[in-house]
Amino acid sequence: MKTIAVIGAFDTKGREFSYLRDRIEEYGAHPLMIDVGVLGEPQFRPDITAVEIADLSGTGLRRLREQRNRKAANDAMIRGIKAMVEKLHREGRIQGAVSMGGGQGTHIAASAMSALPIGFPKVILSTVATVAHAQSHFEDINDTMVMNSLVDIQGLNYLLRSSIRETAAAVVGLARNAEILSLPAGAGKRIAMSMFGITTPCVSGIQEKLERNGYEALVFHTTGMGGRIMEKAIRTGLVDGVIDVTLGEITSDVFGIPGGAGGDRLCTAGKKGIPQIIVPGAVDVLNFMPPETMPPAYEGRKYLMHNTDLKVVRTNIEENKILGEDIARRLNYSTGKTVVIIPLRGVSANDCEGKEFYSPEADRELFKTMRKNLKPQIEVIELDYHINAPEFADYAARFMMEEML
Amino acid sequence: MKTIAVIGAFDTKGREFSYLRDRIEEYGAHPLMIDVGVLGEPQFRPDITAVEIADLSGTGLRRLREQRNRKAANDAMIRGIKAMVEKLHREGRIQGAVSMGGGQGTHIAASAMSALPIGFPKVILSTVATVAHAQSHFEDINDTMVMNSLVDIQGLNYLLRSSIRETAAAVVGLARNAEILSLPAGAGKRIAMSMFGITTPCVSGIQEKLERNGYEALVFHTTGMGGRIMEKAIRTGLVDGVIDVTLGEITSDVFGIPGGAGGDRLCTAGKKGIPQIIVPGAVDVLNFMPPETMPPAYEGRKYLMHNTDLKVVRTNIEENKILGEDIARRLNYSTGKTVVIIPLRGVSANDCEGKEFYSPEADRELFKTMRKNLKPQIEVIELDYHINAPEFADYAARFMMEEML
Repeated sequence: MKTIAVIGAFDTKGREFSYLRDRIEEYGAHPLMIDVGVLGEPQFRPDITAVEIADLSGTGLRRLREQRNRKAANDAMIRGIKAMVEKLHREGRIQGAVSMGGGQGTHIAASAMSALPIGFPKVILSTVATVAHAQSHFEDINDTMVMNSLVDIQGLNYLLRSSIRETAAAVVGLARNAEILSLPAGAGKRIAMSMFGITTPCVSGIQEKLERNGYEALVFHTTGMGGRIMEKAIRTGLVDGVIDVTLGEITSDVFGIPGGAGGDRLCTAGKKGIPQIIVPGAVDVLNFMPPETMPPAYEGRKYLMHNTDLKVVRTNIEENKILGEDIARRLNYSTGKTVVIIPLRGVSANDCEGKEFYSPEADRELFKTMRKNLKPQIEVIELDYHINAPEFADYAARFMMEEML
Repeated sequence: MKTIAVIGAFDTKGREFSYLRDRIEEYGAHPLMIDVGVLGEPQFRPDITAVEIADLSGTGLRRLREQRNRKAANDAMIRGIKAMVEKLHREGRIQGAVSMGGGQGTHIAASAMSALPIGFPKVILSTVATVAHAQSHFEDINDTMVMNSLVDIQGLNYLLRSSIRETAAAVVGLARNAEILSLPAGAGKRIAMSMFGITTPCVSGIQEKLERNGYEALVFHTTGMGGRIMEKAIRTGLVDGVIDVTLGEITSDVFGIPGGAGGDRLCTAGKKGIPQIIVPGAVDVLNFMPPETMPPAYEGRKYLMHNTDLKVVRTNIEENKILGEDIARRLNYSTGKTVVIIPLRGVSANDCEGKEFYSPEADRELFKTMRKNLKPQIEVIELDYHINAPEFADYAARFMMEEML
């Protein structure tokens, strides 16, 4: 029988978690009840107590209660529950995990799930599942299933019972059928790639060539979230090489625009010594999604509507200088083989001769600044092609397969 | 054997949907493959073709293709797929539904799921599951399980195969175990209530009293999303009465602040003739979540930090006049029994004698404007209590049970 870790505040939400526990049993799995409530005594006897979780955090539960600092207490319980689920998983004692909560409960739940691997069954029932400003809770949860609870997780009514039944059914179904992620025997090397609409032909071209030669291509969509997941995939050893041709998230990050993927973007493969080909693709656009997020400072600049949700402003020469420096700075962390390939005829679909964003002057500034600031160990190759030319994709794919892996 | 509707663009994502189909079979359910791709021919033979879906929309597939208008084509396919899944569900031909997609695919998937009832197994694998600006796709999906695909749904690599396996396992598990939402035999009347932190004592007090008397209380958290779900629950006949004591979403809506629940908020029960008690609770705050969303116009106003994510500004006399008019306008749609109960000593936890937001002048203006603008059929009761006083909750609960239901 599969064992499911059930994580929650059993002091304030005891009735709701009892109902979840009973459904998991009814559907044929074994619930392992873990209490993370700090306020009071659990309403039923947990298998793992809040005292044990607090101890794992390095601060005892009594001290957490005495401090009366909600944030400090939550942070401690998060440290504790992450350590606990990691241990339970490592020891093979759980085959799934489930939690439910409101704003704060979701934060703890998501933290716990983030400590569990991709492919491991994970489900959260949350009151803030579809609230835009709460999405930061879900940044790091990987492939956790998330369901909206519709009503507050407060008292058992027929709507909440329905949601809890579904939550239990999903995690039991996952535990029964899903397999932990493992590389199939005989699978080829895995290459992470970054894509956005304006670099899609390049990525598809590389992908096709890689797959025809037995490689696996993992394509990440560079929406900010995609870049973070890509860096995490690299960091956790899921890939053998990187072809990073879509760096628009760096532009967002450098100029403080929504959609950046943070300071680690473009750094992880280098720091880990994983072979990487870098192409400064899609750095020519400042993405405003939704369009209303464009600050007044960018009024009057050349722009395109990529679609109704996305307004893009062309980077200018000054911005490309700053960008070139920042890209070089990030790449200079590399300890392994890193090659930059420059598409001399343009870095994105719109930055193409005859297209609205074509600006060889701006591109030249970018390329010049990158070359000037990259450390000598990083090879720079210039190709007289546009980034989306088939020849460019062929060259990049062949270079990865023949020279780097 | 359970049948799962598998909805997708089989022209561009045929390989990925074939893999999903095979996993559903492997896990013991029957996939019913429904093509919504308009661009080209499906990569395998679907059970229900895009031609059939387009026909249901009122526009033939050939015409959609000829128009070359992406938005018009998507809108038509959405109309078609919603009609199709409603029909399949009505006829008892499906016991679950699943889809996967990127930005556009998620939009179609979410639309399809929104046509299916609460409690019906629904799963979406999406590349934009945790992207804040894409959350509007998920506004209407009710209890659909959503999972981040981590990588683009483009080509089969080991990460995507893992996500698809989980998606299949979840929907099969749901279909096997979850029951369609039904009111348990002998259950009492169901009352929808609205709650926010600053009205929690009032709601808990009412809830306790209702439940003690065999009623079911459904509590919705008024974050903007919660209010929308509450109106939908009322609209779809899920409740017998409404005690709406938390109207902060109206404040957000009227003053164009994030967190509004739209123009239908506070109107549905009245239009349907469902008995409702209305209390103008929590209207005293302009919620800025996160705090950075506060426009410069509100600088210098009295504010509180509700928590680190939420900055609240006290409404003033002028704003309360506008609010009172708007609340009355919405309530005047009522066709059934509607009673307004006014808590003369304050409308939220902070609007209480001795607390920072206490402002009898502002409240008086609100109450006065409401009374002046409400149609005569709506009874107004004034109670000399604070909204969170136990006596106020007792009165409201008793009034609902004894006078209205």
